[in-house]
Amino acid sequence: MTGPARFDVVAFDADDTLWRSEDSFHAAEQRFVELLGPHAPEGVDVAAALSAIERANLSISGYGVKAFTLSMIEAAISISGARVPASVIDELLTIGREMLTEHVHLLPHVPEVLAEVGRHHRLVLITKGDLVHQTRKITTSGLEHHFDHVEVVLEKDPDTYQRIVDHLDVAADRFCMVGNSVRSDVLPVLEIGGHAVHVPYHLTWAVEHVEHHDADFAELASIADVPRWLAGAA
Amino acid sequence: MTGPARFDVVAFDADDTLWRSEDSFHAAEQRFVELLGPHAPEGVDVAAALSAIERANLSISGYGVKAFTLSMIEAAISISGARVPASVIDELLTIGREMLTEHVHLLPHVPEVLAEVGRHHRLVLITKGDLVHQTRKITTSGLEHHFDHVEVVLEKDPDTYQRIVDHLDVAADRFCMVGNSVRSDVLPVLEIGGHAVHVPYHLTWAVEHVEHHDADFAELASIADVPRWLAGAA
Repeated sequence: MTGPARFDVVAFDADDTLWRSEDSFHAAEQRFVELLGPHAPEGVDVAAALSAIERANLSISGYGVKAFTLSMIEAAISISGARVPASVIDELLTIGREMLTEHVHLLPHVPEVLAEVGRHHRLVLITKGDLVHQTRKITTSGLEHHFDHVEVVLEKDPDTYQRIVDHLDVAADRFCMVGNSVRSDVLPVLEIGGHAVHVPYHLTWAVEHVEHHDADFAELASIADVPRWLAGAA
Repeated sequence: MTGPARFDVVAFDADDTLWRSEDSFHAAEQRFVELLGPHAPEGVDVAAALSAIERANLSISGYGVKAFTLSMIEAAISISGARVPASVIDELLTIGREMLTEHVHLLPHVPEVLAEVGRHHRLVLITKGDLVHQTRKITTSGLEHHFDHVEVVLEKDPDTYQRIVDHLDVAADRFCMVGNSVRSDVLPVLEIGGHAVHVPYHLTWAVEHVEHHDADFAELASIADVPRWLAGAA
């Protein structure tokens, strides 16, 4: 780093930016399809039915493993015409419990990157989802000490980001968000006049897909490239 | 109000302090007992089994309706030896969905009390539970505009309250919490040097029961008495 830092605050998303998350949902969906296959009528797309129920429940149940587990159970009952045995529902509960308690798998380079970026910036963690599960992941990740402030939010929209920059007392133009979701980590931050870096993950949840946008922002292949990018942005 | 206010910030709990909550859980438990009765072995205490599973899941699932619904389903499978029909599980999902979407029933006098107390103090809302459900209740309650700040927290312990008073930049001695739970709204606030007023509700969740304490704090019969108490405390 040669000049003064371009940003005062660098904020990181957590799921699929600092640690794996979507892999577990993906594995759970595959397990759901296997479990429900024998109980579904011919020709029913089990995965699509689960996905539709998940989406329909979002506004009531929000994001996270508990909401997902309830959607799996609802889909199992619906797909089977209420003929699914309790033993299958019990397996769905077990899948949910395992997701809530599994170890956090950090993505490569994350601790070093946070240490490096934290040397020149205030670091903030902004994650969407279930309060108890996100908090458990943060406290067991070994990363919490890097962050000056942690926010678990309901939805990552422009209002949420505006509230956070106000709370942090930082100008939007001095705030940079790093995350894997164009929809949640990039576009709403640009909308309030902030900056964002997109670090894609190999899996993206359907709900996070953005079809079209004409925003212009940095996209990096790996979180390991973030310190160099920040130095260049200075 | 004659003299200067004794407190800078008055914080309110939400569930069973500003609006009814425990009534719904109580009704759901009764419905659970009726639904499971026919599927439980002779002599099994269905309500006690549910309560034990709820408690066992607290550290993983946290507080709130989604966690409670998952515990009902787990208890139904366990009590019935996995013989409960999917139609009963479906009814449990419906109970949970109704709890998540039911209208907020404000307790008597709440809007006037908040308006009155807000004239002389900064008002804060501190509630424990599920982020999406608590947020929905706050935004649909018609009370949100009274509050300068809202916190949905995982656990109401001394660390949480300390973090909040630090964030609000208020001395603990100038902070007063109003709520229905001695365990969550009173004792941890006294522990950090703050003040608290207990306004009991006619139902208390078993987990919130406190057997013994020797703390000395105000207990008011109704939230309607809070403005007068605050004026007297000045």
